[in-house]
Amino acid sequence: MKALVLEERMKLALRDFPIENDEAVGPRDVRIKLHTVGICGSDVHYYTHGGTGVFQVKAPMILGHEASGTVVETGAEVSTLKVGDRVCMEPGIPDPNSRATRIGLYNVDPAVRFWATPPIHGVLRPTVVHPEAFTFKLPDNVSFAEAAMVEPLAVGVHAATKAQVKPGDLALVIGAGPIGLVTALSALAAGCARVFVSDVDDAKLELAAKLGPITPVNVAKEDLSAAIMKATDGWGVEIVFECSGHSKGAEGVFDPLCPGGRVVFIGSQVHDIQYNVGKAMVREARVEHVFRYAHVFPRCVAMLSSGAIDVKPLITREFAFEDSVHAFEVAASAPKGEVKMQILMPQ
Amino acid sequence: MKALVLEERMKLALRDFPIENDEAVGPRDVRIKLHTVGICGSDVHYYTHGGTGVFQVKAPMILGHEASGTVVETGAEVSTLKVGDRVCMEPGIPDPNSRATRIGLYNVDPAVRFWATPPIHGVLRPTVVHPEAFTFKLPDNVSFAEAAMVEPLAVGVHAATKAQVKPGDLALVIGAGPIGLVTALSALAAGCARVFVSDVDDAKLELAAKLGPITPVNVAKEDLSAAIMKATDGWGVEIVFECSGHSKGAEGVFDPLCPGGRVVFIGSQVHDIQYNVGKAMVREARVEHVFRYAHVFPRCVAMLSSGAIDVKPLITREFAFEDSVHAFEVAASAPKGEVKMQILMPQ
Amino acid sequence: MKALVLEERMKLALRDFPIENDEAVGPRDVRIKLHTVGICGSDVHYYTHGGTGVFQVKAPMILGHEASGTVVETGAEVSTLKVGDRVCMEPGIPDPNSRATRIGLYNVDPAVRFWATPPIHGVLRPTVVHPEAFTFKLPDNVSFAEAAMVEPLAVGVHAATKAQVKPGDLALVIGAGPIGLVTALSALAAGCARVFVSDVDDAKLELAAKLGPITPVNVAKEDLSAAIMKATDGWGVEIVFECSGHSKGAEGVFDPLCPGGRVVFIGSQVHDIQYNVGKAMVREARVEHVFRYAHVFPRCVAMLSSGAIDVKPLITREFAFEDSVHAFEVAASAPKGEVKMQILMPQ
Amino acid sequence: MKALVLEERMKLALRDFPIENDEAVGPRDVRIKLHTVGICGSDVHYYTHGGTGVFQVKAPMILGHEASGTVVETGAEVSTLKVGDRVCMEPGIPDPNSRATRIGLYNVDPAVRFWATPPIHGVLRPTVVHPEAFTFKLPDNVSFAEAAMVEPLAVGVHAATKAQVKPGDLALVIGAGPIGLVTALSALAAGCARVFVSDVDDAKLELAAKLGPITPVNVAKEDLSAAIMKATDGWGVEIVFECSGHSKGAEGVFDPLCPGGRVVFIGSQVHDIQYNVGKAMVREARVEHVFRYAHVFPRCVAMLSSGAIDVKPLITREFAFEDSVHAFEVAASAPKGEVKMQILMPQ
Repeated sequence: MKALVLEERMKLALRDFPIENDEAVGPRDVRIKLHTVGICGSDVHYYTHGGTGVFQVKAPMILGHEASGTVVETGAEVSTLKVGDRVCMEPGIPDPNSRATRIGLYNVDPAVRFWATPPIHGVLRPTVVHPEAFTFKLPDNVSFAEAAMVEPLAVGVHAATKAQVKPGDLALVIGAGPIGLVTALSALAAGCARVFVSDVDDAKLELAAKLGPITPVNVAKEDLSAAIMKATDGWGVEIVFECSGHSKGAEGVFDPLCPGGRVVFIGSQVHDIQYNVGKAMVREARVEHVFRYAHVFPRCVAMLSSGAIDVKPLITREFAFEDSVHAFEVAASAPKGEVKMQILMPQ
Repeated sequence: MKALVLEERMKLALRDFPIENDEAVGPRDVRIKLHTVGICGSDVHYYTHGGTGVFQVKAPMILGHEASGTVVETGAEVSTLKVGDRVCMEPGIPDPNSRATRIGLYNVDPAVRFWATPPIHGVLRPTVVHPEAFTFKLPDNVSFAEAAMVEPLAVGVHAATKAQVKPGDLALVIGAGPIGLVTALSALAAGCARVFVSDVDDAKLELAAKLGPITPVNVAKEDLSAAIMKATDGWGVEIVFECSGHSKGAEGVFDPLCPGGRVVFIGSQVHDIQYNVGKAMVREARVEHVFRYAHVFPRCVAMLSSGAIDVKPLITREFAFEDSVHAFEVAASAPKGEVKMQILMPQ
Repeated sequence: MKALVLEERMKLALRDFPIENDEAVGPRDVRIKLHTVGICGSDVHYYTHGGTGVFQVKAPMILGHEASGTVVETGAEVSTLKVGDRVCMEPGIPDPNSRATRIGLYNVDPAVRFWATPPIHGVLRPTVVHPEAFTFKLPDNVSFAEAAMVEPLAVGVHAATKAQVKPGDLALVIGAGPIGLVTALSALAAGCARVFVSDVDDAKLELAAKLGPITPVNVAKEDLSAAIMKATDGWGVEIVFECSGHSKGAEGVFDPLCPGGRVVFIGSQVHDIQYNVGKAMVREARVEHVFRYAHVFPRCVAMLSSGAIDVKPLITREFAFEDSVHAFEVAASAPKGEVKMQILMPQ
Repeated sequence: MKALVLEERMKLALRDFPIENDEAVGPRDVRIKLHTVGICGSDVHYYTHGGTGVFQVKAPMILGHEASGTVVETGAEVSTLKVGDRVCMEPGIPDPNSRATRIGLYNVDPAVRFWATPPIHGVLRPTVVHPEAFTFKLPDNVSFAEAAMVEPLAVGVHAATKAQVKPGDLALVIGAGPIGLVTALSALAAGCARVFVSDVDDAKLELAAKLGPITPVNVAKEDLSAAIMKATDGWGVEIVFECSGHSKGAEGVFDPLCPGGRVVFIGSQVHDIQYNVGKAMVREARVEHVFRYAHVFPRCVAMLSSGAIDVKPLITREFAFEDSVHAFEVAASAPKGEVKMQILMPQ
């Protein structure tokens, strides 16, 4: 039984990799046979750079954290899941007794253990033991592929929740990568009448425009703020989601924002950004920051099941597990037109 | 040029009806030629009962307040509208200097003047003068018929806004009449994954079930609370919207509600209801009350234009203006299968 | 080592009462030697009535849940407390894995185990074993007597938090009993400029008026709503806290409320109340219900320590533990002028 | 009748200055005889620099916008004020028909006309005509001096409102100038258990420490973040108010902030600041920006009257109007120990 192991920077291997602690199924745990695992930009970054910030790969580590599968064993006290249930899993496990977790902010608990974040192994492997509390049963009409999209979708849904979207709001999503697109879908599902999506890549923008009432803006060709102001009678959008990760995107968040508008920064930035307090002040902008997600996995599953959100157009390519090293090579090449690539585990 | 005049209870006339004060177009007003006017339950109630609560028809009054039309004259200081613009209108005009209006709650300003609420005339007449601030330009892809639905839709959108829907919430709408259905659409647009709609009328429930991820519950055939609890693994729904206007609906709002859930009462009840504080307490329920709407007309127009909400299936019948007395007779007969009937004004 | 045992309705005994399960200090538990225990209305109700609703005393039960004491033993994993620490304790322990607890609403978890609520014993006994997570260290300047007031104070602070008090709000507290008074103090601490307190008992109102910018209203002598409207230029108060537990108080909550105002029901009512939806609607009132409290104990301790809230005037009488049967007899007589009576445990 | 005129940068004159438009009292206006006018940092900045940003003094302008006085004339439709009423005034008048004003955000209406902001004259003059809606009657127990403090206090109260203080929160106020101190008072009144105030000036910190449960931190002597973390058991404060206007303060707002904490930037910064998105992200910080205030003047008056806030310790010096040129010279010298200096107009 093999796993996809990042031995060190730029060196992947498909090989046996026993994980001792993984054997014990605690009373409130389940064991899951993996079915589908999506490739995240962070997986690729560990592959190409060997780490990010304080998280550096110092020993061989299994990759993968966007996952779905089937329950194959349940702990003695598990009550909501049974063997055979199709599930998706939330990849971060917090300390239930930490102060942050107890007030509901488990995602910002510093003690959280997160798959494929050193030294915690990911799930590109046959099975994993996981707490029942972070494992979510799938309705029949949600596929394993869709379920493996819940993890990135959760980022967008958490961001839209933080934005406190009101029905009829207009939003701008900066960046049309996977996170930008799930955020655009989430913003629409959360009540936006229309979403503008900006990027420099026409292919991505073309895809975005097919996902709903989304207006693409190519910032290589037109001025973003001017385009937004023209389209909104000079008022601006109620919400700006920064999903590009680039300082240029981050430093322009206030220009297209309306009075009383909200900005949501998804994820971090490599360097400090230049932040214009005056522009934020004259709009009385509210700026939110989101870190992963909390409490939204079952909500995402419910929205996929009801059709409130459709992530299928974002899944652009599948690989067999035996081709997973190749899959990462492809992912690392930043291929045009690909949004989400997924790996199918042997069943 | 004729108007539809309620002379007294059960007596309608299509006749000339000069309105003197209506001649003057103030600097911030526009004159609108009416195009489509929907028939509201309150119009019918004035027709059949001659009044409601403190509002009694003591002199002939023109009916109608759900309206769209075309700007035919503009005041000197009007800047956002011009002659020829297709528009819909918010029927209540508050005192801009009242304390409630100044803090943004203009709908609860006691001084508000509302069309077809005695002694203020409605708009089943050729033209009306209205403030620019309460007149909203229509995009090309929003029809006059849809635009005349903005008024009832605004009730649902306002209720969904007050409910602070979070993406993936489940909701129950009690009552499948016009307000129940626009509320269900609004709740879905505002982020609900799924909405349960309850009523005793299978025809209405059948229509409801076609409008999106809506699960109908016929409360004449099954226990509402039991049905909801079964469908939600015993948790309940996050939001209950009471739209039936009946005490039976209103008195059952807490049973299907989850811990921390919200209840929204739309409109009033004829009598005091029996309210179980204990049931609300053990859930720490939040109960909101809405009165008409505020600040949502342009949001509704944007959502109709983008396709975020589709009200067309709710418009079930149209009448020519010359048949409007007959239209009210039909409406008063509570016809099966009709949701919204509209009257087309002569153009 | 004796405990105060409610043998059955109206029969109290100070006697030895071994509690087997209480012996084990788990890894995240502490053992606390009790110092001060306040007498709550619910303790008295169990004494005089033998139960309330579904909670009936079917076997001898130790009373008392408003408590402070000293840590005398700590579990192996306890990190925030040590032997000798002076503490107060939150009397309800939820299931950490319940759905309600995980989203932060542990007080409405149906599985919560609460001191002196059958069949869970209270703490009028020498020691108790309690989770570290619900045990809070006291600063030096907070006395045991004040600390034993944290439990009732928490109700008021939780209610004021739910009310989302804005600085300068005006509030009305209906009922000048212990909960009414801690709510008035909490409302002031939370930002109210002034609080009106209504009751029929001049002695209680006199005490209330000494606690801060509080205006007493004796509803036996003047019309509450008229008094509030006169004092607020006809606008009303932003918040009404119902703390009387009586239907008459509960049914009058909307009359003195301003447009957009909030009502908070603290606790339950014996019978259904008559609820006027129309009065709530024309104000677009928001109604909150609170059940005990969540996450506020450390906040209460901080406010007692800083002086933001002073509960000392509410502690009107102390009894030695050996006199505790007498203390309950006094409490059951509804003595004039007493607010909070406390029992000092042998040290 | 003379006014204090800023002729140009560094040149003040006490001279006759007729204002033509000021003669007409409209139907909803009142004329006010000025009594007390505070000197604001912005007044001094216009004096010493001749302008700020886009606001440059191009023609002689009367200074002063923190004011109280007495009504001496009322318009025909004025209903809440009468001749002889003692009042304070909100210095900014928005366009009542602007989109921002209508949704309640009148302070960010670009069309707002604000006293002593070019080209609008201030009120260091005998009388001024002002809208009733922005003129607030004083209770007998609020002095003219306190009333002239309402304008700066409103900044702090608005900031505390935006911060959504929950009872028992801990806050840090960066900067112990007049705005920092009113913000600290407002934060305490809004529910904070304790406020830390940081500055480099021991005199200001000493004054701060006398205003309530305020812990001073001299950042010239100790590390701010380390001091906060030590005092909060490593958790941090729930709220950070940046009131220093300096980039060093602004760039350190996240370090002492707890998970889920809020930051409020009061006012602007001269240059872009370096903003660390990662630090904000791992805390899921919310950042608010405030611009002046909206809807809080009557709230401030109510809190001064009830004693919820006491601004008297902040008024450190008074000048007669005839000495007002000297007063500005003193103010421009940044005198140690002065917080708020006020000018008394001839009566």
